[in-house]
Amino acid sequence: MQLDDLPTPALLLDLGRLEGNIARMAARTQALGVRLRPHVKTHKCLEIAERQRAAGAVGITVSTVYEARTFAEHGFDDITWAFPLVPSRLPEAVQLSAHCRLGLVVDSPEAVAALRTSGRPLDAWLKVDCGYHRAGVDPADPASVGLARDLHDTPAIRFRGILSHSGHAYHGHTRHEIEAAANEERELMTTFAAKLRAADVPVPDVSVGSTPAMAVVRDLTGVTEVRSGNYVFYDYTQLALGSCGPGDCAVTVLATVVSGRRGASFSVIDAGALALSKDRGPEHLDRHTMGELVADYATGRLDPARRVVSVSQEHGVVNAPLAVGSRVRILPNHSCLTAAQFDTYQVVRDDEVVDCWKIWRGR
Amino acid sequence: MQLDDLPTPALLLDLGRLEGNIARMAARTQALGVRLRPHVKTHKCLEIAERQRAAGAVGITVSTVYEARTFAEHGFDDITWAFPLVPSRLPEAVQLSAHCRLGLVVDSPEAVAALRTSGRPLDAWLKVDCGYHRAGVDPADPASVGLARDLHDTPAIRFRGILSHSGHAYHGHTRHEIEAAANEERELMTTFAAKLRAADVPVPDVSVGSTPAMAVVRDLTGVTEVRSGNYVFYDYTQLALGSCGPGDCAVTVLATVVSGRRGASFSVIDAGALALSKDRGPEHLDRHTMGELVADYATGRLDPARRVVSVSQEHGVVNAPLAVGSRVRILPNHSCLTAAQFDTYQVVRDDEVVDCWKIWRGR
Repeated sequence: MQLDDLPTPALLLDLGRLEGNIARMAARTQALGVRLRPHVKTHKCLEIAERQRAAGAVGITVSTVYEARTFAEHGFDDITWAFPLVPSRLPEAVQLSAHCRLGLVVDSPEAVAALRTSGRPLDAWLKVDCGYHRAGVDPADPASVGLARDLHDTPAIRFRGILSHSGHAYHGHTRHEIEAAANEERELMTTFAAKLRAADVPVPDVSVGSTPAMAVVRDLTGVTEVRSGNYVFYDYTQLALGSCGPGDCAVTVLATVVSGRRGASFSVIDAGALALSKDRGPEHLDRHTMGELVADYATGRLDPARRVVSVSQEHGVVNAPLAVGSRVRILPNHSCLTAAQFDTYQVVRDDEVVDCWKIWRGR
Repeated sequence: MQLDDLPTPALLLDLGRLEGNIARMAARTQALGVRLRPHVKTHKCLEIAERQRAAGAVGITVSTVYEARTFAEHGFDDITWAFPLVPSRLPEAVQLSAHCRLGLVVDSPEAVAALRTSGRPLDAWLKVDCGYHRAGVDPADPASVGLARDLHDTPAIRFRGILSHSGHAYHGHTRHEIEAAANEERELMTTFAAKLRAADVPVPDVSVGSTPAMAVVRDLTGVTEVRSGNYVFYDYTQLALGSCGPGDCAVTVLATVVSGRRGASFSVIDAGALALSKDRGPEHLDRHTMGELVADYATGRLDPARRVVSVSQEHGVVNAPLAVGSRVRILPNHSCLTAAQFDTYQVVRDDEVVDCWKIWRGR
């Protein structure tokens, strides 16, 4: 099938770019001396995770129990559920841990207490706040050492190490600021690991990561693994942050111009919030967008004058009067949220649709 | 099962409130002398559409071919696809129209030309812009009369009438402004219908609607049907607009507090963008929110000091230090987008989970 034959809206995945992104991150982590445990919440797709594993990934990272179960049932046997433990999900996690090596993440005494009730030995990571200020313990707080010690001392818990996410790298305005966030993460994490070891709490692993940080960081001494996810696709946010080039962006939404009021300066496409999501992209970089129109797909060049300026449930509004019936390709602001709105990837090489891969977007 | 036993995040649907909302809108449309063809994109759920039909709905409205096919396959035989015709979806629509009465919507010469190629008689509505300025022809443009005439004159097309959506009612600051939008819609549509009839183009039906407009409009003379959808659930946006009371909101997200940094002023819950969506709600009414915490479910009273202030993929951040392990119920900003992120409704009466209904969220 050719691209022109696809009904819209469709989620296109460029196979060549995907393979390039996977190979480059594998090479980069190898050069930095760290293992890669990619976050599959970005793609929720078995075929992509299999390619990451073939390129050397040591396991995968997931954000929900549904994702953990899906990938475990399809042969992935080393999984970190990188989300603060949800007590009501513990029975499912315990059940899964009989079939795969499942790492859980905790950052509170309440969660450690819940783990103790599981009735089964479980792997656990301590989540550390490395400057993003969302989840995670404060590495400067003495109580954080106590919590790590509790994990290590509890017979029913296998303490795997410490884990962080440099989400604040997404807030950087310049390469310099993003690199500062990446360095802050490494510094805080390796210092905290040293503090734990000095207090006789062994720390097997130090796990970090975000795609922007991995794009710029030059030294990961003391870190053992990274968990980037978005790098398989990239998106407009990553492009604006400088994490990738325009020709690396592997996911676009194919849409049709379905309406254009006579004399109006805008037109309407069949890709709205349930195709693109309502993510506003890198707002701190000062460009209001709900999605960017690709002007030349071969180079990835965007059209500086045309973009999706608003979305409702199924409608998108483009700030230009395009011909009704014509088609556009949109680079989404946030490829993870965009992919989660679709059932399948239409896998393409140039203008040919070569495959169709399922997106496991259950809850 | 009791509410306390549900794993989180979960989408809760209050059966009593749902039934009340359906009954009240049925009574209201009857009192106004118009038929009701509810938009099922809000709920994507057979059990809810069946209740709307039992309460007198004459048919349903959908926004995608997937929705049309799903409901047609489950016994709904009068469906309007209220979205400007997507040419690449026409073959699917033609196929469906053999099994149900399917109304298509057009607003351009290009779409009318596409209809002529279908090889099968099709029902078509002309979409009219009633002040929202998204899709639809300009009723003041003489070319719009010509387009209606083309629809009427084409043997392969059954012209059903004119159709509008008062989406600009969502932009109102006061009841007065919302009522003005509703009146503008009725005025423009009935005037345009009269103009067409004077030009010897019969207009069988005049279809309008939005939930905020239907909450305030007092006169629908000349209108034959309305297509509101959101009223089955309502949400924080509708509450802020005055379309409903707090005790009418039928959908909430049940979430768990999973993390709270010691000494921090915030906490983290397991409901992020893939539970609540990234809809920012009624921003023009000046309250930054990604979701509102319900303080007292029985009355629907919100907590004025606590709300979800940011969401990433699976994390939500609440602007208060809540106890880790405690649970919250969140009133979403936009119930349509929230429901579209889940696979099922957990149907509840008070604290009891009485049923589980599938959400047909395919594309």
